[in-house]
Amino acid sequence: MERRKFLKSAGIGLAGAGAATMSAAALAQAPEVKWRMTSSFPKSLDAIYGAAEIVAKQVAAATGGKFQIQVFAAGEIVPGFGVLDAVKDGTVQCGHSASYYYVGKDPTFAFDTAIPFGLNSRQMTAWMYEGGGLQLLRDFFKDYNIYNIPLGNTGAQMGGWFRKEIKTVADLKGLKFRVGGFAGQVLSKLGVVPQQIPGGDIYPALEKGTIDAAEWIGPYDDEKLGFNKVAKYYYYPGWWEGGPQLTLYVNQGEWAKLPKEYQAILESACWEGHAYMQARYDVRNPAALKRLVGSGTQLRPFSNEVMAACYKAALELYDETSAKNPKFKKIYEPFKKFRDEQIEWFSVCEGRFDNFVAATVRAGRPEAKKK
Amino acid sequence: MERRKFLKSAGIGLAGAGAATMSAAALAQAPEVKWRMTSSFPKSLDAIYGAAEIVAKQVAAATGGKFQIQVFAAGEIVPGFGVLDAVKDGTVQCGHSASYYYVGKDPTFAFDTAIPFGLNSRQMTAWMYEGGGLQLLRDFFKDYNIYNIPLGNTGAQMGGWFRKEIKTVADLKGLKFRVGGFAGQVLSKLGVVPQQIPGGDIYPALEKGTIDAAEWIGPYDDEKLGFNKVAKYYYYPGWWEGGPQLTLYVNQGEWAKLPKEYQAILESACWEGHAYMQARYDVRNPAALKRLVGSGTQLRPFSNEVMAACYKAALELYDETSAKNPKFKKIYEPFKKFRDEQIEWFSVCEGRFDNFVAATVRAGRPEAKKK
Repeated sequence: MERRKFLKSAGIGLAGAGAATMSAAALAQAPEVKWRMTSSFPKSLDAIYGAAEIVAKQVAAATGGKFQIQVFAAGEIVPGFGVLDAVKDGTVQCGHSASYYYVGKDPTFAFDTAIPFGLNSRQMTAWMYEGGGLQLLRDFFKDYNIYNIPLGNTGAQMGGWFRKEIKTVADLKGLKFRVGGFAGQVLSKLGVVPQQIPGGDIYPALEKGTIDAAEWIGPYDDEKLGFNKVAKYYYYPGWWEGGPQLTLYVNQGEWAKLPKEYQAILESACWEGHAYMQARYDVRNPAALKRLVGSGTQLRPFSNEVMAACYKAALELYDETSAKNPKFKKIYEPFKKFRDEQIEWFSVCEGRFDNFVAATVRAGRPEAKKK
Repeated sequence: MERRKFLKSAGIGLAGAGAATMSAAALAQAPEVKWRMTSSFPKSLDAIYGAAEIVAKQVAAATGGKFQIQVFAAGEIVPGFGVLDAVKDGTVQCGHSASYYYVGKDPTFAFDTAIPFGLNSRQMTAWMYEGGGLQLLRDFFKDYNIYNIPLGNTGAQMGGWFRKEIKTVADLKGLKFRVGGFAGQVLSKLGVVPQQIPGGDIYPALEKGTIDAAEWIGPYDDEKLGFNKVAKYYYYPGWWEGGPQLTLYVNQGEWAKLPKEYQAILESACWEGHAYMQARYDVRNPAALKRLVGSGTQLRPFSNEVMAACYKAALELYDETSAKNPKFKKIYEPFKKFRDEQIEWFSVCEGRFDNFVAATVRAGRPEAKKK
């Protein structure tokens, strides 16, 4: 503990502890480093999986191939939901995952991805890097022997595919909805029966009517699984993930062993992967949504009544969880303050710009002119 | 030309032409490189200027101090608006600027920063990296001997400070408004008399009434110059820059001379600076706006009437410019298509999420409850 403090105050940082012996000229003797990265995702989710590949490529390019990271898809080394433990235990040096998969271990993990009615993608990045979020989460991840680095954001996800329309809160009663983690807990307060089903099993369950609805990601990824063929209504937004972040987990010991030049290169490569993932979704989702609507999908916003009831239920859940879990409370309080300030600002300048342009472009569409 | 083609198809790329002699193991003999970067901005614009400093710091960290970039504020080596020429002519190896400063040379430069009613910050990054924008602009910048890399975005800027309220298009007639480049051309179609005044001279001009209004950046930067003391009305949004991007200009010859590892490190460092600038503004603007409103500033949205007239004038200007300038037309056409598709998508999922959360948070504010 004392050594950590010393290193921190000397400006080297905890992260540099094991690398403190590296001199500034050490790059000339830069060692060969070979890492394995296990992903929680299949290769078919190419925008998400691709961000991990960008990091690997960039790290190799920046070191003349001396620092190599090999990326493995979910299941190749460990299952998708086993990434946290695999990195914690040193089975692999690093892994790419969504922290809200681990809310069963501790609901605090949700802050590293998204909580219902939380931040949008841009606000999430601001919170992490300039709003204190990253430091709070690094403190939390220390207990899991992990050094966490943001690596991607999908942007606001869709609310999912429904076999029947959802107009009122009463329509949620008894609804068998494939939805995970925290969102499931919020919705169960309103009578929904949350279902846990792996991505590949959603289609047949929805087709047979074993479930009434399922959420996945957004148009680009949802289209690939063909949900539009077995459910007519496509709801938005996924208010439980307005800007979900993905994360690179690095084993603390492995991180400390890296030359500090490689640490800098890896962190910088993660910025690149982080931004690319968002850009890829932003470019691919519009075309996919157009194709889905063209194929007969009925696009529906969740009604204000439904959204407001879910919002109220979410706040209740946060209060209940804060009362039981001091780690959750420690992050929730500054998070909430940050969120409220962000929303006040975004609703002014960004909101007015976006909404005016959207209304104007939509008014110019052929179908708008017909009205 | 043939050599370029060969290098491209060999996967080395034009950029690597001069670096092609570097072997994969060359990092061990990595050369000392010392560059100067001249900024178009003063140090007081710390969120913008700071992004250049992040790049310099990151590049040094990743190379054990072997690649050094020294950043100079506007005026230290060349004036703020002289950055393009200084990089083109090799006075410095690189520079940080806003390309719309150079619309006098060619209006096409505006696409690299922002055009009126164009893209928001996130859409701009998507267009650049995944929507074809970067390639179009790299082709354009070749004529200026520059390799361009995005380096920062401020997010939607404010519309500026007005001594009197602007309610209708008639209120724009004869208005002496400090506003630059393309926005000035749009507004002059509606009777505005655009004024070109350096940042430091705006305050006295606004105080004396030599000008009626002035736009600068956003709450965080505007507050420092004290405009709230000499103009009461603070309008939003700056529809002429919904997501203005800053750019690192690198002299083509200097770029080609860099080892390819350093090229990779510099590009990656720019991602870091790019994202940090946005995060810093997002965190600092809300608090500044709150202070400004607390000091008596009257916050006003531009009316739909004014915005719609400006939108129409902007489209006219784009058509006129496209008719005269094939370089402009070559970028405008795919840009417009991209923008319209983005807006359709953003107005669905992102828009509904942001607008619901904004309305809900605002309804919970004390002043909303009083109503």
